Amino acid sequence: METATAVLADIFIMFLCAKLAGELFERLKQPAVIGELLVGVILGPYALGWIGVPTAEMIEAFHGEQLATEALHSIMEVLAELGVIVLLFMVGLETRLSSILSVGVRAGMVAVAGVVVPFVLGYAFVALVLGQPTIEAIFIGTAMVATSVGITARVLADLGHIRSDEARIILGAAVIDDVLGMIVLAVVSALGQGGTVSIGQIGLIAAQAIAFTVFVALAGRQAARRWSAQLERLKIRNAPFVVGVLVMLGLATAAAQIGLAAIIGAFLAGMVFAELSEQYEIEHKALPLYEFLVPLFFVITGSRVDWRLFMDGSLLGIALAVTVLAIVGKVVGCGAAALGLGWRRVAIVGVGMAPRGEVGLIVANVGASLAIIPSEMYSTVIIMSVLTTLVVPPVLTLLYGGQSANPDEVADYAVADGRLPDL
Amino acid sequence: METATAVLADIFIMFLCAKLAGELFERLKQPAVIGELLVGVILGPYALGWIGVPTAEMIEAFHGEQLATEALHSIMEVLAELGVIVLLFMVGLETRLSSILSVGVRAGMVAVAGVVVPFVLGYAFVALVLGQPTIEAIFIGTAMVATSVGITARVLADLGHIRSDEARIILGAAVIDDVLGMIVLAVVSALGQGGTVSIGQIGLIAAQAIAFTVFVALAGRQAARRWSAQLERLKIRNAPFVVGVLVMLGLATAAAQIGLAAIIGAFLAGMVFAELSEQYEIEHKALPLYEFLVPLFFVITGSRVDWRLFMDGSLLGIALAVTVLAIVGKVVGCGAAALGLGWRRVAIVGVGMAPRGEVGLIVANVGASLAIIPSEMYSTVIIMSVLTTLVVPPVLTLLYGGQSANPDEVADYAVADGRLPDL
Repeated sequence: METATAVLADIFIMFLCAKLAGELFERLKQPAVIGELLVGVILGPYALGWIGVPTAEMIEAFHGEQLATEALHSIMEVLAELGVIVLLFMVGLETRLSSILSVGVRAGMVAVAGVVVPFVLGYAFVALVLGQPTIEAIFIGTAMVATSVGITARVLADLGHIRSDEARIILGAAVIDDVLGMIVLAVVSALGQGGTVSIGQIGLIAAQAIAFTVFVALAGRQAARRWSAQLERLKIRNAPFVVGVLVMLGLATAAAQIGLAAIIGAFLAGMVFAELSEQYEIEHKALPLYEFLVPLFFVITGSRVDWRLFMDGSLLGIALAVTVLAIVGKVVGCGAAALGLGWRRVAIVGVGMAPRGEVGLIVANVGASLAIIPSEMYSTVIIMSVLTTLVVPPVLTLLYGGQSANPDEVADYAVADGRLPDL
Repeated sequence: METATAVLADIFIMFLCAKLAGELFERLKQPAVIGELLVGVILGPYALGWIGVPTAEMIEAFHGEQLATEALHSIMEVLAELGVIVLLFMVGLETRLSSILSVGVRAGMVAVAGVVVPFVLGYAFVALVLGQPTIEAIFIGTAMVATSVGITARVLADLGHIRSDEARIILGAAVIDDVLGMIVLAVVSALGQGGTVSIGQIGLIAAQAIAFTVFVALAGRQAARRWSAQLERLKIRNAPFVVGVLVMLGLATAAAQIGLAAIIGAFLAGMVFAELSEQYEIEHKALPLYEFLVPLFFVITGSRVDWRLFMDGSLLGIALAVTVLAIVGKVVGCGAAALGLGWRRVAIVGVGMAPRGEVGLIVANVGASLAIIPSEMYSTVIIMSVLTTLVVPPVLTLLYGGQSANPDEVADYAVADGRLPDL
């Protein structure tokens, strides 16, 4: 009971400070997610120590500080896992398979170039310039692959250009990018767990990941279409929402059990329900879960950053170098694939693909939990995710010439943005 | 990561089986909560062991099965705590202070009688019939004082009677009961520690508990009225819901920190927002949290029942006697204080006040940690807590049998009932 009471206090502090920071960052016209991360860094055991530090009772119950900290860490990890699963489920709910398929060759090219160029740059920098082990370089490259569709969409919606050609290319490419990034992450995670790098193994895992993804996306959509009418015959309350959450948890568990990241399952579960989402208001009903659990993920993620590492000048240099490569990689890769749209749109597509946001953090967490990347590189990835996110809103605003948002378009995109539609 | 993955599988299994059982019990026209409790007993570590059993990785991480189980137990406890807090918050949202005050005198009588009669019965049985030491008898009496209103609230909501007179009396009495029970526990703990009980100390604890309850109920409502307009000026999304969750977590934490049950704080938080709930759809938005977290509380509660305790004949005899006294004590005490409402409501109030739930377990744990009560009496209190909890749903259903709430009433308080109103 003492443990639950202590953790309850931690959850309250995390939620309070996350929302205060969110309010502040909203007023500063910056993504709330950055405030949540900073809150985690400040509250965490490496700074104030208001969260993530076991109580005397816990230390006694677990016969020492080390295991008590481990137990508390496990509790936080479960909360963070639930948060990120809900986050990816929501992203999936925004993602109709048809919209991915209809955005065209251009979005696919942008996505592939946006995966390949940053990965190569990240890999080359860590392996060749820093001289770190191959697996570590692969992991940093993977962290640089991701595009955070949520933050990209949020910035475009805020600027009022969500319906523009370049926005549709960015959104479509970001979605494909997410799927590609997840497959890359699944491959790399399996490599990290196995330790050996065999081409056949990579092929097998990639095939498994693609098979799981394609099967769930296609068969799941068929099943959702065929059985959606049955949902209304269930006696349990809010059956469509409950079944959505069940499938989210089930596919997340299934993905984790077969060695993929749990979030892949959650994302696919969202995509399965994307077409039913409007009819049954699944997204609308999942939003409170999002509001409660997702900030905990970012605060807990931030709390794992040991800021003292950045007092080390050389480490800070590496972090800044990785950040510059992460931005250059997307701008060059995505921009090149978008050539022919005019320089301004090319630049917008490139910069718009740059934010790594939570997806970079997810990769960092997987790498850290597999003990593949050392804590300096973990912190480097987090700084890179934060900086690529921070830098994009002002640059995009500049590229659009400071045009103010069209309120109708913002309202239209409100659900993706996490704002409740008017009822 | 392995721990989070393993717990994710547990959460999926719990949620899946809870909803399957819920569907079955809805079709049998029984409260879903009974199904959820039974699912917990069956899945739990003492039966099938599908949940609550640490994986090999966890056992390795915690240097042995005992601490790994303890860590997993802590994780489950946090999930269960969040569930029961959300449950009482939702019940509070249904409960306007004015409606509690309108039954205030009656509720106060029920609470006091519900403390005195079970305490006297428990003390008399252990001291006079069993011939155990006075301090032990006092402790068993104290364990019989508590009321854990969560399950009663859930059953009343499931059956469609949460806004009835008897429900308001039970809820009001439960709040008073908890304050009284806490004072008694503080006194008894001080006695148990061999120390003298300072009147000033008791006064301080009592004043703190009463001040907290009264201050939150009255000042909270004032604050909610005065500042509700400010909620609309906040930039964060879904500000009223987010602030509601914040106050829920904050008051639950505050209550726990001053020694009250966390659920009392959550209930008061709900009551503070009761008048704003409709305007801002707080209840509507909190419902998904309820749907996700509350079943976990009941499944986890069920999973803690060690049915093997019931195999020991002599222990079972004493435990059953204590259980009967615990129920009779509440039915007679609370019922007598509720006389004049008609026999059926008297019985409902008495039975509704009977569950000891986690509050009884807290007292047992305090007694065990002070080495006041021997392990057989500890097991007795646990059996009593479990049985008084398990017995309530079917008996209340029976008492309401053939008198199910009329559909209009159900629709009226549909939100408490977990049914979404039409939008």
